[in-house]
Amino acid sequence: MKRDVFFISDRTGITAENLGDSLLTQFPNIQFNRTNIPFVTNEKAAQAAVLAIRQSKKNGVEPIVFSTLTDMATQTIIKDSCAHVFDLFGTFVEPLEEALGTESSHKAGRMHGIGDTNTYDKRVHALNFTLGHDDGLSLRNLNDADIVLIGVSRCGKTPTCLYLAMQYSLKAANYPLIQDDLVGSTLPKSLDSCRGKLYGLTIEAEQLSRIRKERRPTGEYSTLSRCQWEIARAEKLFIEEQIPFIDTTTVSIEEMAAIARRDMKLR
Amino acid sequence: MKRDVFFISDRTGITAENLGDSLLTQFPNIQFNRTNIPFVTNEKAAQAAVLAIRQSKKNGVEPIVFSTLTDMATQTIIKDSCAHVFDLFGTFVEPLEEALGTESSHKAGRMHGIGDTNTYDKRVHALNFTLGHDDGLSLRNLNDADIVLIGVSRCGKTPTCLYLAMQYSLKAANYPLIQDDLVGSTLPKSLDSCRGKLYGLTIEAEQLSRIRKERRPTGEYSTLSRCQWEIARAEKLFIEEQIPFIDTTTVSIEEMAAIARRDMKLR
Repeated sequence: MKRDVFFISDRTGITAENLGDSLLTQFPNIQFNRTNIPFVTNEKAAQAAVLAIRQSKKNGVEPIVFSTLTDMATQTIIKDSCAHVFDLFGTFVEPLEEALGTESSHKAGRMHGIGDTNTYDKRVHALNFTLGHDDGLSLRNLNDADIVLIGVSRCGKTPTCLYLAMQYSLKAANYPLIQDDLVGSTLPKSLDSCRGKLYGLTIEAEQLSRIRKERRPTGEYSTLSRCQWEIARAEKLFIEEQIPFIDTTTVSIEEMAAIARRDMKLR
Repeated sequence: MKRDVFFISDRTGITAENLGDSLLTQFPNIQFNRTNIPFVTNEKAAQAAVLAIRQSKKNGVEPIVFSTLTDMATQTIIKDSCAHVFDLFGTFVEPLEEALGTESSHKAGRMHGIGDTNTYDKRVHALNFTLGHDDGLSLRNLNDADIVLIGVSRCGKTPTCLYLAMQYSLKAANYPLIQDDLVGSTLPKSLDSCRGKLYGLTIEAEQLSRIRKERRPTGEYSTLSRCQWEIARAEKLFIEEQIPFIDTTTVSIEEMAAIARRDMKLR
């Protein structure tokens, strides 16, 4: 039987889902049925959430609730819901007040709010830059990039770039290594202006072939031998040109982004 | 003086940064100097992190550490670092073990790992779909979308779509309302196949004009009067066609995505 889990927050629920999910992965033998209840900003919304939780309890098993509510009144209502409530936020606020020697504002919804306009603009600029420089679309202003991912077609450059822009507001461009680059074993001239920003991605040939076959089931492009050849040439190029690179085969998008950010010392 | 804060984790640090930043927003009068130390997977890495923390303590003020380490050995090393350590993970593991009536696996790095291939593939498919259907690029297979955002140019459709795909693996397309749609006050025929998936975005005219001026400083496109006219027509269309919509003016990308997902009952 699946165990019901609720994520309750006064904003998006992303923080509650993030830590909650992370804790639940420590219990791989239990199946969970997740419900996100965002924007619980007043007592009425909290009571509606309690109703949903009580409904779930009728199945006999106590539901788990992860809450990041900051407001005392709504938090109290949720705590009376007969579920096992984990107060992800409140648990740390008081010790943090002590450590910092000041009271907290107890204001709801500061995370994932629009925050200051500067930060928002920076992020949207980064996203626009990344979209405009996807797949070698434009080589203009490549020296404005914070990082330029290079690698063979379908090795994960685009999602990693988008994540770098979305999560860290980094202007991430990508450049696909095509036939000409791989035969010649030299970096294209157009990358000269961003030499120190290059970061290589590689991948196992079997996985690349599988991914490419989904796109184009037939033809040279997705054959294992073609993938092997391209990857071997690309890795040789990375080594000769001293470009740092990672193997993306068993690495998630978040991890690739975090590793690239660390390796390239980007803030 | 800025207060030094460290986020320490055995994987990306995203979970630690997420909850840690969220807690810190409750102290708006203190300035923080953030350092993310990801991939602390062994004792050597933990000792290197402790060095960085001790270095910071030389400034005289006790640093704050948010940790999501799952491994006992590394966690113990960090706890001996003379900083104020908040153990975001460990705090909840034991009570969660009790609530679930089973022991946790105490395994590191399950969150933001590649997980099962199905989930990874679903997410990359969603991203590819979203990129392929950005800005009305392609109207093919629009009925395959999970959600279709519509609105005037530059009201936030693209970043919201990308976030929906990245965070929730949803196939999010977007369609820009252009002159013809707005003059005629009728939905374009090409949207007939996804009638129930339409979700409208609107924005205040002043902000739209500011955003457009950054792109094209001169010309009709970015004038306040033009923005006012387009928005008024778009909102009229949403109301007449009974398309749910939100005002994005003071709402972050995460919030827009979470609200749209809730309103359209998407999982």
